[in-house]
Amino acid sequence: MKNEIIPISLITTGGTIEKKYDESEGTLVNKESLVKNTILNILRLPYSEISLRSLLSKDSLQFTDKDRELLLSAIKEELGKNRRVLVLHGTDTMAISAKYCFDNLKNVPLPVVFTGAMKPIGFLDSDATQNVVEGLLAVKILSPGIYLSFHNKIFTVPNVVKNKSKGTFEEI
Amino acid sequence: MKNEIIPISLITTGGTIEKKYDESEGTLVNKESLVKNTILNILRLPYSEISLRSLLSKDSLQFTDKDRELLLSAIKEELGKNRRVLVLHGTDTMAISAKYCFDNLKNVPLPVVFTGAMKPIGFLDSDATQNVVEGLLAVKILSPGIYLSFHNKIFTVPNVVKNKSKGTFEEI
Amino acid sequence: MKNEIIPISLITTGGTIEKKYDESEGTLVNKESLVKNTILNILRLPYSEISLRSLLSKDSLQFTDKDRELLLSAIKEELGKNRRVLVLHGTDTMAISAKYCFDNLKNVPLPVVFTGAMKPIGFLDSDATQNVVEGLLAVKILSPGIYLSFHNKIFTVPNVVKNKSKGTFEEI
Amino acid sequence: MKNEIIPISLITTGGTIEKKYDESEGTLVNKESLVKNTILNILRLPYSEISLRSLLSKDSLQFTDKDRELLLSAIKEELGKNRRVLVLHGTDTMAISAKYCFDNLKNVPLPVVFTGAMKPIGFLDSDATQNVVEGLLAVKILSPGIYLSFHNKIFTVPNVVKNKSKGTFEEI
Repeated sequence: MKNEIIPISLITTGGTIEKKYDESEGTLVNKESLVKNTILNILRLPYSEISLRSLLSKDSLQFTDKDRELLLSAIKEELGKNRRVLVLHGTDTMAISAKYCFDNLKNVPLPVVFTGAMKPIGFLDSDATQNVVEGLLAVKILSPGIYLSFHNKIFTVPNVVKNKSKGTFEEI
Repeated sequence: MKNEIIPISLITTGGTIEKKYDESEGTLVNKESLVKNTILNILRLPYSEISLRSLLSKDSLQFTDKDRELLLSAIKEELGKNRRVLVLHGTDTMAISAKYCFDNLKNVPLPVVFTGAMKPIGFLDSDATQNVVEGLLAVKILSPGIYLSFHNKIFTVPNVVKNKSKGTFEEI
Repeated sequence: MKNEIIPISLITTGGTIEKKYDESEGTLVNKESLVKNTILNILRLPYSEISLRSLLSKDSLQFTDKDRELLLSAIKEELGKNRRVLVLHGTDTMAISAKYCFDNLKNVPLPVVFTGAMKPIGFLDSDATQNVVEGLLAVKILSPGIYLSFHNKIFTVPNVVKNKSKGTFEEI
Repeated sequence: MKNEIIPISLITTGGTIEKKYDESEGTLVNKESLVKNTILNILRLPYSEISLRSLLSKDSLQFTDKDRELLLSAIKEELGKNRRVLVLHGTDTMAISAKYCFDNLKNVPLPVVFTGAMKPIGFLDSDATQNVVEGLLAVKILSPGIYLSFHNKIFTVPNVVKNKSKGTFEEI
């Protein structure tokens, strides 16, 4: 179908990408999702219909098995509505959550892409916009499957791990 | 090969995306290429090796047949060096130049992607960064061929045309 | 009075500072006032009460005697309400309009400050925010009179002229 | 003297304004001074000659008496060179350090202005640029004395205190 509008579900879970500066405490914390006002509203997406689902709001080091079950069931639900899925997730356990979904999602009918950021969305030199833009394109053009998209590279899950010293991900 | 660095040639030709404000004249003009300092230096591209080739610096409405020949031969040269190619081009005749390359480039061995912007790179709400980020990912993950990438959508050349009233491209 | 909220009227007249990019034409034009959404809403002004008055929307080279009369009468009106006045104006004839007000406003009871920008508000490296921030402070701390504030310098009207080659103003 | 270049010394001491995000730790820390590359290089200051003096790099809650002595002696030194002084300082004890200077600096020959920010310099919606721009103008146009400049208001030291709940300063 020509010039079709593609439905994409953007599931947010917190993580560095959505940490916000608390001026009274002087610290960065996960509260509400920030991606809509800071990135989505600025991008030009005439051929995409994005629905935002704020699922969790935590540092990914605090993720429990229950959180991963919740994420898996949300992804299944969105896929069941025939929507591609982009997941925003903290980088520290992103590869673990992605592998958990890979192990428990058989015959994925559409692309599911995980991304996040090394620097929160509110910084001038954050990598959040780059990663979200890449994730939104990846989810459109990759074949069905589970991926991690980061810093201009697509990784196939589960063959990916965070490289903490380089501040990015790498293939294993 | 794991964690391979992919070579990409970024050919610039001018166009709205690289127009710069001339303070003494109060007008927007194509002079030198701007993409390096404004976009490339800010992106995180640990798995890409980008070489910038400033080929032309004109509004695409001024493009002549000679300019298109020059562009075609530059693309051929970069492909011959085993590099993927991203072309920055004015939107008004981007589809025409892309079609010209499509007609004259048989058996393209790697992806060649055209992109540009509706609003020059120097504006806070320019679509240049989005389009360049998308183009740099498209050139990495698409199969060999000639494409136009714009506003989170990949178009197959020559089935694409600018929609001036909507300020974007569309499939035909 | 401690921690008093100071009333300031911001009169906009167009000029480079408020030129907006028209994507279909590819040109910069004066239409509606832009300063509220781009600058005022971002600044922290707990001790100021700013009212915006969009008076004109033209390149200052197009200013007529009628326009200057209109501006003068708006300034008088705001001063009559006991409000300090900041005027946004094109740089090309700013010194002329400021001198016109100087010649026709005797016994100014509060500061009246003119400012503008060399580069429109929408550019990442515009001087608009700097000049507006400086103007809003100047209007608060200068003694009554008519001034031109630009690039971290306060000029006393009418001893000021634009230096076109340097892209700023200078004392004469 | 017409169009004179005014010498200003910018003394940095750390504080929220110059906290930087450490990507490997996920925290905000005071390291080197950031104001030059992020603010000074962007402003247009044709009539100012700014010299940057990075004195300390700490959260102002960690300031000791020794630090305040050091700051006082640096201010004296800069004033002795006939330079106006702008001090960047953490907000939590800025009023205390300013009062310390007020108590120990008699017959100040030029303006000394303290400022800082509620949100670090690297955030898109930081108040750092506003406060630095205001401070640089305040130091030029105020009469000799010690001031705190913040959020478009000039406070006379020592009649000023931080209002933590409002995220700004207030007169006492």
